[in-house]
Amino acid sequence: LSADPVILVVGGGLIGAGWAATFAGGGRPTVVVDPDPSAAAMIETTWLKAVPVLAALEQLAENPTPPVVVRTVGKVRQPISFVQEALPENLKLKRSVLASIEPLLAVDTPIASSSSSLMAAEIQAGLKHPERLLVAHPCNPPYLMPTVELSGSALTSVEALSRAEMLFSALGKVVLRLERECRGHLVNRLQFALWREAIHLIATGVANVADVERAVSVGLAPRWTAIGPTTVFHLAGGDHGIGKFFNDLGRDVEACWADLGAPNLDEATCRRVTVGMSVAAQGRNVAALAAERDTRMIALARFLATQRKDGSVSVKGRGT
Amino acid sequence: LSADPVILVVGGGLIGAGWAATFAGGGRPTVVVDPDPSAAAMIETTWLKAVPVLAALEQLAENPTPPVVVRTVGKVRQPISFVQEALPENLKLKRSVLASIEPLLAVDTPIASSSSSLMAAEIQAGLKHPERLLVAHPCNPPYLMPTVELSGSALTSVEALSRAEMLFSALGKVVLRLERECRGHLVNRLQFALWREAIHLIATGVANVADVERAVSVGLAPRWTAIGPTTVFHLAGGDHGIGKFFNDLGRDVEACWADLGAPNLDEATCRRVTVGMSVAAQGRNVAALAAERDTRMIALARFLATQRKDGSVSVKGRGT
Repeated sequence: LSADPVILVVGGGLIGAGWAATFAGGGRPTVVVDPDPSAAAMIETTWLKAVPVLAALEQLAENPTPPVVVRTVGKVRQPISFVQEALPENLKLKRSVLASIEPLLAVDTPIASSSSSLMAAEIQAGLKHPERLLVAHPCNPPYLMPTVELSGSALTSVEALSRAEMLFSALGKVVLRLERECRGHLVNRLQFALWREAIHLIATGVANVADVERAVSVGLAPRWTAIGPTTVFHLAGGDHGIGKFFNDLGRDVEACWADLGAPNLDEATCRRVTVGMSVAAQGRNVAALAAERDTRMIALARFLATQRKDGSVSVKGRGT
Repeated sequence: LSADPVILVVGGGLIGAGWAATFAGGGRPTVVVDPDPSAAAMIETTWLKAVPVLAALEQLAENPTPPVVVRTVGKVRQPISFVQEALPENLKLKRSVLASIEPLLAVDTPIASSSSSLMAAEIQAGLKHPERLLVAHPCNPPYLMPTVELSGSALTSVEALSRAEMLFSALGKVVLRLERECRGHLVNRLQFALWREAIHLIATGVANVADVERAVSVGLAPRWTAIGPTTVFHLAGGDHGIGKFFNDLGRDVEACWADLGAPNLDEATCRRVTVGMSVAAQGRNVAALAAERDTRMIALARFLATQRKDGSVSVKGRGT
């Protein structure tokens, strides 16, 4: 091991292994700390899966070094430039592990939590330098999915957030920077909002699972890759944009919102969705569906990256 | 004019002109009836826009005949095989125009309404053969957007729905067939469900418009083109699929649903979204954004069509 600074990934589970591959594949020396002896195998398997994906996305550094795995953080000899925490969603565990790591860090080294459901304000309590703690939430798997959601509490420093943003941007990620933190961040909240209505339509017998899937995959998602949900209505307003849309159709939108469903996941609903999903899968098991998804997503991610390079992009990066 | 049967499009506005181009471009002789003298220009402009799009999608027939425009339905000399109604969203108007057209039709000729907000049960009242009436709702523009949502009331005949489904499938459309009709159909309800949360996140200052747009365009939409919203959680359940997901995480999903916003489009919210949209547009006016959208969507539609041909498709067509 050289004395170059490293990124420390805390936790070698699904998300930690995915982060480690992302950092290491992007040319950043990376160490994963996990006391579980099986972590090393997980890190290696994930690395082997991630390398061709990163290559396809043109995000693989030349001659990248695979992540190194250690059982305890005391084994890390290099200076640590950035910490990415990827422990289970257990607040006590996160707090105690991070408190034990903090003494090894320079006072301003950022600690980014991968948490999807906890807030920076909760996780940073107990740190000597709580201002260094932020949340950097990936979608899974981190080496394939482009977004990273950054947020902090009122205590989190602008400097920690900016250093995180620079790192993720340099790795090719699209950084979404929340103005204030919010449980579930942006991506999952938006996803669950749409899925609630999908479940309502299925549970009330309006359509089967396969047709609801197609309504999203064929009807909505292609347009949404080109323009986001608010731009859709901005363009629907003609030359005067969304202001005119609100004037002319705001009441109709509110009426539609009032008519949306609010289902519960009771036994009957879960059974109906489970059976419907099985029909929609047309005999393909989960592994086969996952393989199809991966093939299509990698091809699509390459295609969209090419479109971005051509400059014909609605969704520009921050500051461009 | 030959005596081959024609598709009659009733109303030559934005949607009617788009339908006419779709049918005519797909090789179906098409007549548009509209008393407004300006309709002919709209039909022609739309035809010229649609032809290269249909060609790019490989949905343009050889030597297609442009739609013919007439002022009154009495001018139509050919037999009518299918009626697509695209009048304004005014129930009285739709009923009275359709009642005046019905005597010219064979008893089983389907009448499909393009309505986005009215139901077949409402529109068919007053017809001599109400069973022929269904709703076939496109996304705009119909020649570019792939889905057509078909639904009928309890009175609507299976035959009328099947004839409509065969026609739209032959034109290359992806048909979503509702099991029972529902105000707003599938696509718009799902779109408005997600947008409600987007407005909530913007209105409460969690994120700016540009980052919410990116959360959808970059974070969610690419995966959703590969797999639909329920399949996402089916795969999150690992080998045991969505049944296991509901067992393990159903309560967390319900908690997230309970936390979603229910904003109103009051003045302050509309102003905030309008200003945020203007910042996100980065100086591009509506026409420039619309042109970007069209360029990207046509390229993406071609790419996705190629993927479907390759056979690596999660979202298979009905009956395949």
